[in-house]
Amino acid sequence: MTTKQLVEQIHRKRSFLCIGLDTDLEKIPVHLRTEEDPLFAFNKAIIDATHPFCVAYKPNTAFYEAYGTRGWEALEKTARYIKNVDPGLYSIADAKRGDIGNTSARYAKAFFEELNFDAVTIAPYMGRDSVEPFLSFKDKHTILLALTSNNGAFDFQTKSLGERELYKEVLATSLQYTNSENLMFVIGATKAEYLQEVREIVPDHFLLVPGIGAQGGSLEDVCKYGINQQVGLLVNSSRGIIYASNGQDFAEKAAVKAREIQSQMSLELERLL
Amino acid sequence: MTTKQLVEQIHRKRSFLCIGLDTDLEKIPVHLRTEEDPLFAFNKAIIDATHPFCVAYKPNTAFYEAYGTRGWEALEKTARYIKNVDPGLYSIADAKRGDIGNTSARYAKAFFEELNFDAVTIAPYMGRDSVEPFLSFKDKHTILLALTSNNGAFDFQTKSLGERELYKEVLATSLQYTNSENLMFVIGATKAEYLQEVREIVPDHFLLVPGIGAQGGSLEDVCKYGINQQVGLLVNSSRGIIYASNGQDFAEKAAVKAREIQSQMSLELERLL
Repeated sequence: MTTKQLVEQIHRKRSFLCIGLDTDLEKIPVHLRTEEDPLFAFNKAIIDATHPFCVAYKPNTAFYEAYGTRGWEALEKTARYIKNVDPGLYSIADAKRGDIGNTSARYAKAFFEELNFDAVTIAPYMGRDSVEPFLSFKDKHTILLALTSNNGAFDFQTKSLGERELYKEVLATSLQYTNSENLMFVIGATKAEYLQEVREIVPDHFLLVPGIGAQGGSLEDVCKYGINQQVGLLVNSSRGIIYASNGQDFAEKAAVKAREIQSQMSLELERLL
Repeated sequence: MTTKQLVEQIHRKRSFLCIGLDTDLEKIPVHLRTEEDPLFAFNKAIIDATHPFCVAYKPNTAFYEAYGTRGWEALEKTARYIKNVDPGLYSIADAKRGDIGNTSARYAKAFFEELNFDAVTIAPYMGRDSVEPFLSFKDKHTILLALTSNNGAFDFQTKSLGERELYKEVLATSLQYTNSENLMFVIGATKAEYLQEVREIVPDHFLLVPGIGAQGGSLEDVCKYGINQQVGLLVNSSRGIIYASNGQDFAEKAAVKAREIQSQMSLELERLL
């Protein structure tokens, strides 16, 4: 999907909500656990109920790999199902991959071709040749980790590398990579005050913002500091939506939560753009 | 496997060779491509032929994920086969994973429990809580990327973070993590001169050294600067061994290459320890 198409979807739905499919067999409703493919059964119900309120889904690959081949199958089915429900839905593999050049090219093939995701998250530690194989795919996005929402972010990301913090160096350096127009960046919402500084370096790129809800960030602050002319934000919520209830009504309750966030987003879009 | 058991294997075999199973359908011999599971057929033949000369195998997950569920199955079968051939063989999932705490725990489960690898490679960018869930597994190793062998290593890893380069900060900071005795570190052989400085920070830990052979490092330099009292080195070669021939004799030629390296390693062990 192109950036332009994503922006159109955001305006159409008045939402820049991304729902994280961190689907955990131990957390899904008991009545689903006897299904043939409980991970997919859960995801399907969540997608069916919530897709009017979001523009993107983001399965985190860790939750699928933990179940081996069965899990990988559920991931494949989920990726396909998202596009079957609505080809306008944007799909992100939250994989945090990255390797030397020829090996990164294999990961890019896995996520962009084999699984047909629109975007994949990438760790920046190995530098240019670990990122560019992803960037070379047309109409796909490479979402680089810059500032993450966990405590470990303070170990290295916020420490000074030369004149500025490592995460800012990652932002600025990656703009020099070939096809950098295909980049997006992960910026954790628990540090909304940083978004202003981030926007000085990358005014035009989309930011994927985790950490709304369970991890504690405020949507208002994220919008205030992070929004740009083409919105430029995908705000993720995972557990707060998909585990809103663990009863028979889990999908319905997830939809209620998603709709709540969508309503706030609609107001912010009206107010700021 | 414990570090002690690994060291025993190294002395028994007079080898600290790790063979990288970067198995690529486009590079394996044509006669294998019609097999039901060509990735596994290739790996099985390579393992059968080379295991007397190495102590470890390291499949890189990218090459398996590129083929979806089929690829993941081949990875599972390969992990199991390594231990079937010889429970003393050490198995490394070269996965370069890393995520926020509860998500890293899922990856740890995937590689240490579901696939039963002895070790997994991890990217350090997200800091402490992304690494510690791996470290909490008993008799398993977490191999942290420090200085990689690709050109992109100069983008961030070798830049100064405060008083020292980022990769040194990664080494020193990670020693503070809980269960840091279960750490190993990736240090690319293309920068063998750095090994001396690495050993000042982590004198006792094992180093996984890629970049011998195809990527150009010298075994002699690696040993000179990197060896410690319990050897402390796993030196990896992938393409130089597994693609030594692409004919009917591929496994035989791989064994010849592996044996060559093992002979050099045996000499170095005699000379230095």
